[in-house]
Amino acid sequence: MSDNRGILDALRHARHDWMNDLQLIKGNLELNRVERAKQVIDTMVITAQNESKLCNLRLPLLAEWILTYNWSTHMVKLEFEVGAAGYSGYLDDERLVHICKGLMELLETTVESSAENQLSMIIDFSEEHPRFIFDFTGILKETDVLERWIEIQQKNGNKVETELLQKEAFVIHLSVE
Amino acid sequence: MSDNRGILDALRHARHDWMNDLQLIKGNLELNRVERAKQVIDTMVITAQNESKLCNLRLPLLAEWILTYNWSTHMVKLEFEVGAAGYSGYLDDERLVHICKGLMELLETTVESSAENQLSMIIDFSEEHPRFIFDFTGILKETDVLERWIEIQQKNGNKVETELLQKEAFVIHLSVE
Repeated sequence: MSDNRGILDALRHARHDWMNDLQLIKGNLELNRVERAKQVIDTMVITAQNESKLCNLRLPLLAEWILTYNWSTHMVKLEFEVGAAGYSGYLDDERLVHICKGLMELLETTVESSAENQLSMIIDFSEEHPRFIFDFTGILKETDVLERWIEIQQKNGNKVETELLQKEAFVIHLSVE
Repeated sequence: MSDNRGILDALRHARHDWMNDLQLIKGNLELNRVERAKQVIDTMVITAQNESKLCNLRLPLLAEWILTYNWSTHMVKLEFEVGAAGYSGYLDDERLVHICKGLMELLETTVESSAENQLSMIIDFSEEHPRFIFDFTGILKETDVLERWIEIQQKNGNKVETELLQKEAFVIHLSVE
């Protein structure tokens, strides 16, 4: 039964998202803004292609976690982009979800609730250097917890490169090999 | 794991369907056929509203069976429409799926494979007279098996009303009370 509810819920959420976009296209057409409507369509196509790439990574747990994350209310919006996908080595699906989930849970308790907080997650699984790039904008109450999170990742053997770490933004590269 | 695969598959199929419609809108806009594009959008909205009604019937097994049916290849295409939905009595979700599944399996083995076969299923759950209306167009090799199916339904205590029963079309009302 939970399986069944899962599929119906997934379809409901997907339908809801698409309907919003469709209303946007329709609204623009009503106002004779055909070019703007075309842009909305192009954005929808890119989003769909990105989702499709995510699903083709053969990391079903990670894909489902990402695709369903924004369906519940959170302080931090999750965006994602699949960059390179050529890595041929083994990646532990469950471990990757654990890492991402841990970071999001940490951010949820660390961000200012009044701010517009967003984490863009770039999935950059190149053959040479498979990694996540976590790119945050918003407001963190403090950066210390994030520094501790980085230390823990490093203790767990994950290489971390901190490009930027401020209250208003951070960019962290995390190797997943 | 099957749960997980189910959600991703559902999203993939939904995305695929929507993308086809989106290409249709886009194509029409490229050709400056704005009115035609608007019509496509209106049809998409109606389809989505219909799906939404189906999901609100509180018959999750039936809803999932219908929504996922055309995702695998069949000789008979399934269409559906939710008419009345005011029936307040108890309906056995599993039993309804069993009836519909049985009919579709029967049709699959009875239709001419070269024909365009389609079953439109009207879900007409009014307070007074909750029923399915099965409206078929295509080509049946014979009508005998269908007559036997009707007899079995009647033996099972389901009232059946045959509006039309020919090789090229049938309309059967089946009470589900």
